[in-house]
Amino acid sequence: MQTRPLYPPFTVGVDLGGTNTVYAIVDKTGYIIDKASFPTETPSVDVWADMLADGISAMIDRHSLQGDIVGIGIGAPSANATTGSIEGATNLPWPPPVPLANLMEARLGLPVKVNNDANAAAIGEKAYGVAAGMNNFIVLTLGTGVGGGVICNGHLLSGARGFAGELGHITFPFAADRMCGCGRKGCLETVASARGVVETARRLMADSDRPSSLRNLTAEQLTSKAIAEAAEAGDALAKEVFEFTGECLGKAAAEFAAFTDPEAIILFGGVAKAGDLLVEPMREAFGKQTLHLYRDRVRFMISALEGANAALIGAASLPLL
Amino acid sequence: MQTRPLYPPFTVGVDLGGTNTVYAIVDKTGYIIDKASFPTETPSVDVWADMLADGISAMIDRHSLQGDIVGIGIGAPSANATTGSIEGATNLPWPPPVPLANLMEARLGLPVKVNNDANAAAIGEKAYGVAAGMNNFIVLTLGTGVGGGVICNGHLLSGARGFAGELGHITFPFAADRMCGCGRKGCLETVASARGVVETARRLMADSDRPSSLRNLTAEQLTSKAIAEAAEAGDALAKEVFEFTGECLGKAAAEFAAFTDPEAIILFGGVAKAGDLLVEPMREAFGKQTLHLYRDRVRFMISALEGANAALIGAASLPLL
Repeated sequence: MQTRPLYPPFTVGVDLGGTNTVYAIVDKTGYIIDKASFPTETPSVDVWADMLADGISAMIDRHSLQGDIVGIGIGAPSANATTGSIEGATNLPWPPPVPLANLMEARLGLPVKVNNDANAAAIGEKAYGVAAGMNNFIVLTLGTGVGGGVICNGHLLSGARGFAGELGHITFPFAADRMCGCGRKGCLETVASARGVVETARRLMADSDRPSSLRNLTAEQLTSKAIAEAAEAGDALAKEVFEFTGECLGKAAAEFAAFTDPEAIILFGGVAKAGDLLVEPMREAFGKQTLHLYRDRVRFMISALEGANAALIGAASLPLL
Repeated sequence: MQTRPLYPPFTVGVDLGGTNTVYAIVDKTGYIIDKASFPTETPSVDVWADMLADGISAMIDRHSLQGDIVGIGIGAPSANATTGSIEGATNLPWPPPVPLANLMEARLGLPVKVNNDANAAAIGEKAYGVAAGMNNFIVLTLGTGVGGGVICNGHLLSGARGFAGELGHITFPFAADRMCGCGRKGCLETVASARGVVETARRLMADSDRPSSLRNLTAEQLTSKAIAEAAEAGDALAKEVFEFTGECLGKAAAEFAAFTDPEAIILFGGVAKAGDLLVEPMREAFGKQTLHLYRDRVRFMISALEGANAALIGAASLPLL
């Protein structure tokens, strides 16, 4: 039945989202051996944990991998690796704290690692992605928000209470006039998230009469994806949106480099799909801004984890570091 | 002969300065068992290494500690832990690179750890100082320059090439009009170094006619130490110098916290001797600026390592982490 050889060790990855809970058995190369999902909305967190445990057990049995699973990794919003719980407010159906690790360890008898999506992405890049073999790099997740996962000296930085790497909430002059959801001004997230990209496009359109295909879009249609498509089709204003975003990311990366001396900074998530539109201005701004020690020493890369499954694969990598 | 009990493990610390090379045997508590020094200026680096090795061997013999020394730690400007060498330009008599670790390992047959003074200070605070038992903290060395030593998850961050923690060269809007020795503008060092403190005093005096005892000092007498003394004696302008410096440090710490989620930020070095004059405004600015996750969660402390021997004790701690 298998169409390719499978490489141990095997792990189970769980991507806990507000709508669906997706789980999979993944091999050492990041290959998804099997995948399933169910709606996260359940009468209680115990019912959810039972459903997930039953699903995982059945999947392990189906592939005759009893005894071959080294651990379970769960990626979840506001998940804290130190406590193994979901701690902050989320769009999940249960109030925090949700003791994910305890719930699943009790049911499955396997070690469970929990982390937020940015940290899972960082470990995923090291385990299966473009950071294979690297011990010093930073992943910036550019999605609805902006997150950071920092690997330094081969370790994922978690900090005193699991809140290390909140790089989306480091403030910069280039965003000084933008209000962040956290209640402060100037956070990187206000510029480099999907919402930040849309805001930049809105401002560029409002500041001039320049023609742009973006002007034909409704407020709902004006997404970072639509802006990237317009830029790729040659729309000058849309291109400028990503030039600005990339420049901001480069200036931010210039400061981040002085903290952990990374080999690479890797962009992950929806906004990162803009690729070179973002990376070229980022590299240029970094070179202009950073201390000489880091100039020409940091690679800028786009995540190689497969789009739809990236969060799931990242979660599956958690037991591996 | 011993006046107090000695606690193993014992290490040798070496503080390599431009003028003198100081070395000592230190016990587990940071107590200096014996200390000696000689002028660093020698005909060649090999002569220097011979003199240091002979001095250390004689000292070990004198205390009958043969076989009881677990390692040698050398703190030196621009020292790179990854390579064990001095790599950047320094005021030492020999051109870089200086392969310190190799030179001393070959002569003494003991493991040698090399690091810059900021990283040595961080490990020293953990081994003997106010960070005992802490696994997540940041040391800022406020001296001629500003350095950073970052411990996260119990590890000293060194990065891909040993250049992690260059926190003096992270840039901030509050220093946007100050030129740094690195050729860029806005570095924390331009405000929080001894030179930065003097520059702040100069600017405050130039900007107004306010009376201040600092106006009686010659350019040579106007040092950060003299400004701290004036502030302690009640001079309002001198106080304002440290309020500004502390406020800047608090804003910087607010951003650093989001990187590694530290338990404490510890000030070390000459400028830190200003104590509460610096820490109070720092704490206040941090509270106003930082993300809610870190508010009221970070302690601000002044190094407890003994002033004149701080660098030496820091170096002695290097083999312990």
